[in-house]
Amino acid sequence: MIMKNKQVPNIEMAESPLFWPAHLKAGVLRVLDETLIPRKLHYIKVRNVPQAVKVIKDMQTRAFGQFLVVLYAFVLELNTETAPGGLLKRLEKCAHMLNNSRPTFPFSEVTGMVLHWARTAHRENRDLCPFLLKNINGYLAGIRARRLDRVRRIAELIKDGDSILTHCNVSGELAMAARLCKDDGKTVHFFATETRPYLQGAKLTAWELSRMGADVTLIADNAIGLIMADGLVDKVIVGSDRSCANGDFANKIGTYQIAVLAKEFEIPFYVLTQPSKRIKSGKDIPVEIRDANELLKFSNRKVLSGNVEGFYPGFDIVPNKFITKDIPINVN
Amino acid sequence: MIMKNKQVPNIEMAESPLFWPAHLKAGVLRVLDETLIPRKLHYIKVRNVPQAVKVIKDMQTRAFGQFLVVLYAFVLELNTETAPGGLLKRLEKCAHMLNNSRPTFPFSEVTGMVLHWARTAHRENRDLCPFLLKNINGYLAGIRARRLDRVRRIAELIKDGDSILTHCNVSGELAMAARLCKDDGKTVHFFATETRPYLQGAKLTAWELSRMGADVTLIADNAIGLIMADGLVDKVIVGSDRSCANGDFANKIGTYQIAVLAKEFEIPFYVLTQPSKRIKSGKDIPVEIRDANELLKFSNRKVLSGNVEGFYPGFDIVPNKFITKDIPINVN
Repeated sequence: MIMKNKQVPNIEMAESPLFWPAHLKAGVLRVLDETLIPRKLHYIKVRNVPQAVKVIKDMQTRAFGQFLVVLYAFVLELNTETAPGGLLKRLEKCAHMLNNSRPTFPFSEVTGMVLHWARTAHRENRDLCPFLLKNINGYLAGIRARRLDRVRRIAELIKDGDSILTHCNVSGELAMAARLCKDDGKTVHFFATETRPYLQGAKLTAWELSRMGADVTLIADNAIGLIMADGLVDKVIVGSDRSCANGDFANKIGTYQIAVLAKEFEIPFYVLTQPSKRIKSGKDIPVEIRDANELLKFSNRKVLSGNVEGFYPGFDIVPNKFITKDIPINVN
Repeated sequence: MIMKNKQVPNIEMAESPLFWPAHLKAGVLRVLDETLIPRKLHYIKVRNVPQAVKVIKDMQTRAFGQFLVVLYAFVLELNTETAPGGLLKRLEKCAHMLNNSRPTFPFSEVTGMVLHWARTAHRENRDLCPFLLKNINGYLAGIRARRLDRVRRIAELIKDGDSILTHCNVSGELAMAARLCKDDGKTVHFFATETRPYLQGAKLTAWELSRMGADVTLIADNAIGLIMADGLVDKVIVGSDRSCANGDFANKIGTYQIAVLAKEFEIPFYVLTQPSKRIKSGKDIPVEIRDANELLKFSNRKVLSGNVEGFYPGFDIVPNKFITKDIPINVN
């Protein structure tokens, strides 16, 4: 039993499509179009790096999906015919394009890792292509096992009778933990926020929790104060897009205010993290400011009239003091 | 100068359509349909009390508009032919219908006042109809003058260079104060929250501030924490739907969490109130729970799929400890 947290367990569990939203098959990357959920479960065919950059920029994939698309984009590039010797240069160009797709997610940490492998192979005169494929595939298998392990740890954190508030979407893990809780006989209730402006909470989280058989209630982002004040929330569990050495983290806009409210109402606040020491503190994380039109329009129809500006920061940075406990991906 | 705050001033100022959103003309009440703004400035014709109840229930009018509709509904009833002696009974029936239209706004305080006048006239054998008309019209004229006075006091509160955050809509007063500030040479910036699920902030507040020539930026309700943390807000000014003897107040859902955030970031929090001693404290205010479909649909299209509940409390109750200063309607 003492080894439980150190092993990567082989858990058989129901999987949410958001848990692994990109698959490489016969040289084509199929990326789940998260903007079409819950209406359609559609996978976009991505054949090269510029197309990969586009699905990231257009937010058709996000969060963990972005991470997968970056790694698979290198595989697509490896599969492209080229003059020998030019591959390392091309991979560097790919990394550059991917790093510049969106600012807040730490793309350069992922692409930097791949380039490090590529340079090592180059320096050691190894056969670059099979070496990289082996490393990327091995790395992805490890990530997959560690995420499944974290699903189990989230389920352990949730007690019978708990009411859990979540925000935006944590790429399958919470929904799969909800299923484990249910299979374990626990009665658990979830509140999903809408998560304006993109409505990931309404479209993704409520959908996947419901698919996993969980009891889920949607609220407007405005109702968080009320449900907390009324004692309807036992725990907050959110994801993160980027972590700092000091424990600050970036996540979907609105997470900061939920953290402040959780402190005010003395509700434990948990965050799923991918620990990284590259950035010292939250003030060094660049926050993406997205096109205001994404806020000013609803279903492609402008809701405003007159000379009104919009301000749409995609993320906010939660200071470490608000975190009760982080739930990291186990590195070892 | 010492009399300044005691007089009801006769201010000439640009008026927002939301400041006085119902007008009685030739026996027909015209009620501004706030659900069509900003697309259309349309007035609904209301000819009797059931129609008045309907525009309130359907939220085509709200906040101060509801108050006007209640008073004018009695005038409509007075204009209806009836057997003598039955009028008081009919007015009591009207009051009952209006009181049961929506739970949070203090309808019974308004209808109770009218019934008190009616019973007084009845007891004193006065001619009921002209007595009531005179009282209602006199009362409305007084309210109008006092609200114009409050617009001036709001404008005085706002300093040159201020950035003001508001939520939902305060029926013209803030927009008209913005205009006074502008005419006075003050540079002021406004942040309007979207105010999901009904989007009153996007549709009404941003629209009327912009019409009054104010500099206004729309944000998602989720971005309040970020703009406060970044030092972009100097003052919060919100309205209220109902006040308690102890200073607690009810306002549009989301106000409570803004108050908590303002305290966390040490930003002054002002509330426009209609003081009342009828209710002791916030826990005695009934909070309206509206149809979850109003949350689950966007532009009449369901955004969710699966077995997902929605929870849509229309208001929340802000404890008095969060209020820096209230800005009441002057009673004397």
